[in-house]
Amino acid sequence: MARFTIIGTGKMGSAIGTTPIDGDVVILAVPYPAVAGILSAYGDQLRGKVVVDISNPLNFETFDSLVVPVGSSAAAEIAAQLPDSHVLKAFNTNFAATLAAKQVGGQPTAVLIAGDDAAAKELLGSALDAGGMSAIDAGSLARAHELEALGFLQLTLAVGEKLPWTGGFAVVR
Amino acid sequence: MARFTIIGTGKMGSAIGTTPIDGDVVILAVPYPAVAGILSAYGDQLRGKVVVDISNPLNFETFDSLVVPVGSSAAAEIAAQLPDSHVLKAFNTNFAATLAAKQVGGQPTAVLIAGDDAAAKELLGSALDAGGMSAIDAGSLARAHELEALGFLQLTLAVGEKLPWTGGFAVVR
Repeated sequence: MARFTIIGTGKMGSAIGTTPIDGDVVILAVPYPAVAGILSAYGDQLRGKVVVDISNPLNFETFDSLVVPVGSSAAAEIAAQLPDSHVLKAFNTNFAATLAAKQVGGQPTAVLIAGDDAAAKELLGSALDAGGMSAIDAGSLARAHELEALGFLQLTLAVGEKLPWTGGFAVVR
Repeated sequence: MARFTIIGTGKMGSAIGTTPIDGDVVILAVPYPAVAGILSAYGDQLRGKVVVDISNPLNFETFDSLVVPVGSSAAAEIAAQLPDSHVLKAFNTNFAATLAAKQVGGQPTAVLIAGDDAAAKELLGSALDAGGMSAIDAGSLARAHELEALGFLQLTLAVGEKLPWTGGFAVVR
């Protein structure tokens, strides 16, 4: 059975860790500014792996923009640095509490997954479905831009007290 | 009592029209490619009005990008052409069926509103709340980029049969 690694011990890493995901998957559950250091230190060991970026690369000083190039995404930036890994975007649209609860507003917590490698998406999605989540293939890695826009929007709404951290966007299927 | 005008008789225009919105508000309920012609024909009459852009400016040939400049939004493009109007972005994250039903997945249908004029947002939001919706101030007009990313994502998921047209993103508050 392949090893599953979560780098990061914060709220998100802990919440993701409660689901029985398995596979040759490394989840980068750290804030975006910490990603570069991890890629420098562990980049070689990530070759051939599925690498999951969960970040919302906000400018946390202004809460008014992202720190990645306009039109791009954190996931695309990471993928450019890891050409021999299968990079997925996932979890960034889920608040930690809704991952832990596995439901939001009575709907199963939906984890939107974007990536260019179908097998990698299937690997993560199957594990999430088995863990009681609702995995949704959100398309190619280009859709990480839209997932990060959604994550950005959701964070600004929560910080502005328009949403509780136990709520947010649910997916009704 | 101020006049309320909906330009467009399609599904979205009809669904929005079922809510008792009132005020000096013009809703552009037409596909984005039709907006330019309306602004040319009626631009002068829109001075001083609240103008609501509901479009999702997708490239409907590829379903893989928007037709507005990268990082911008249809709403920002419209606002640049209507400097004497108060442009809002709203409704583009709502499928018509969820506006008509006023609920999605058991949650009140949430209409996310972005704009730079607080009074204009309040005018639209109050009317929507009175009509049984749940209006949410999503921030400045710059957030139209994120709302259009969300609308884009939701449309691609529905077209890809990952979501029903009666569902989509609900806001859990």
